[in-house]
Amino acid sequence: MSGEFDFIQTYLSDRQMNRKDVHLSLGDDCAIVKAPENVRIALSTDTLVAGTHFLANANPAWIAHKALASNLSDLAAMGATPAWVSLALTLPTIDEPWVKSFCDAFFELANYYHIQLIGGDTTKGPLSITLTVQGFVPEDNALTRDGAQIGDWIYVTGQLGDSRAGLEVILDENQRHKPFASELEKRHYLASPRILVGQALLDLASAAIDISDGLIADLGHILHRSEVGASLNVEDLPCSKELLDFCYSSRVAQQYALSSGEEYELCFTVPEENRGSIESALAHTGTLVTCIGQVRTQGIFEVLHHGKPVDWQLSGYDHFKA
Amino acid sequence: MSGEFDFIQTYLSDRQMNRKDVHLSLGDDCAIVKAPENVRIALSTDTLVAGTHFLANANPAWIAHKALASNLSDLAAMGATPAWVSLALTLPTIDEPWVKSFCDAFFELANYYHIQLIGGDTTKGPLSITLTVQGFVPEDNALTRDGAQIGDWIYVTGQLGDSRAGLEVILDENQRHKPFASELEKRHYLASPRILVGQALLDLASAAIDISDGLIADLGHILHRSEVGASLNVEDLPCSKELLDFCYSSRVAQQYALSSGEEYELCFTVPEENRGSIESALAHTGTLVTCIGQVRTQGIFEVLHHGKPVDWQLSGYDHFKA
Repeated sequence: MSGEFDFIQTYLSDRQMNRKDVHLSLGDDCAIVKAPENVRIALSTDTLVAGTHFLANANPAWIAHKALASNLSDLAAMGATPAWVSLALTLPTIDEPWVKSFCDAFFELANYYHIQLIGGDTTKGPLSITLTVQGFVPEDNALTRDGAQIGDWIYVTGQLGDSRAGLEVILDENQRHKPFASELEKRHYLASPRILVGQALLDLASAAIDISDGLIADLGHILHRSEVGASLNVEDLPCSKELLDFCYSSRVAQQYALSSGEEYELCFTVPEENRGSIESALAHTGTLVTCIGQVRTQGIFEVLHHGKPVDWQLSGYDHFKA
Repeated sequence: MSGEFDFIQTYLSDRQMNRKDVHLSLGDDCAIVKAPENVRIALSTDTLVAGTHFLANANPAWIAHKALASNLSDLAAMGATPAWVSLALTLPTIDEPWVKSFCDAFFELANYYHIQLIGGDTTKGPLSITLTVQGFVPEDNALTRDGAQIGDWIYVTGQLGDSRAGLEVILDENQRHKPFASELEKRHYLASPRILVGQALLDLASAAIDISDGLIADLGHILHRSEVGASLNVEDLPCSKELLDFCYSSRVAQQYALSSGEEYELCFTVPEENRGSIESALAHTGTLVTCIGQVRTQGIFEVLHHGKPVDWQLSGYDHFKA
């Protein structure tokens, strides 16, 4: 590789169908795009840094998937339809097999969601990836964090806790002998952004967020913005069979489910009157959803095990916390 | 500082007027914005990495200015009106004075151009900054690289070469004794994005680019995309008095002007029939523009000194080149 112009030509050009709303993509000073009328644009930016969000020697295909999936998950949490992405890739050196594997996985996921790469930058430096995704939401109908009302039911998609178990396997070789260690490692990287669920929830949910910092922390953002409280029933938390085997204990698995970050499942609240519609509205998504608690008045935050408060020490995930 | 939520609260919130087209900015999963009808969106992403684009111990205000100005320069090169920016900031640690100085300079420049911070991410890792800026261009009227025609005149804004001289001062202490060394160092960081010029050129220029890799390399992009050639007159290159003094020679200064990257001046081509309108169209911008050559047939690339070819070895700037 002789330079970044070749980089675009070799790895990024001609990997995608051209969306009709993209008038100019790679190769000029800017991309030129146009959003349809009657929609608003939802935008999210995420950075993944080697050593912080993944190990530098991780499978590059998994890194690419995680980077794009985690960013798409933010669109999912707003109920948005993905459209465009820009990729800023910082690499210490151009390792051709690494870059090929990264780009193959990136475009596989991008093409699945019909999202077009419209811009980017490749620079030399410590390995990191910053993505900015954009999608469309109907005017005045995005899922936000501030709409939860007392009495609403609290749901999550999928199963929780696998990502933390996978992270432990990644960070500690001694965890590799545990049941399903390799499978959980893979799940840590290969989350499915809940795009279809988010879209289906636009008319049903009162608030939503994606679980990137851990259920407790992210639900906390909904509660804070909505000025309400909550009670959660830990026996209802959806945990995978693999997690239960890995943890050797349902109690530990439940603790993982409450605190595991980078799950990229959705947590959302649903008013009583919409509860009956959830199942049919989400049937086409093929995604499990589970009611795990209820919205309470502000100041209440109960984590209950068969109705009794638990005294577990739990916290969310924060890169800058000690 | 305890975490990234506090980071947003402390450094990023309440620093700006809310644009009417921003419906939701920081603090949810996504920002929500809406472009006016009858415009298209121009988007550019740039990463600046410590050690590659600036020294880690550089003035944080200058780093912030350079990051945003270089990104805005891409909008300028399309003739776009800036609107929104997202900031992904990766920091090894939160050094409060550093972050305050960085953010103060960032918002000073952002507010000058009425561009609103709508999203971002703060992560822990080696110092780097990725910005994605968006602006508006009229439908079917952006400045692109592919419209230069044989006979068009080649112009540049401002003065060229200062950035390279400044970079030499930054990288080599021995250069500090040279005339205007400190002033040139400052100019390396504190370029002015040519937003007003770009807008004024929308109906006049046939092609445009901003000079980030060096005049030769960036003009080369216009020539390649437009399938034309060029001749340049080095005696017409606009060099500052400070650069001439720093270089002790007009010939060396001209070489700097041809190859200096990260200038963030515009290079643009103007058809003969629009040449007379340039001066009045740009009068309100207060920006010097200079005609430095003419577009020729494809295959010709002449660098002339009073009509005679020069034999200087020149190249553009490419982070991945050896």
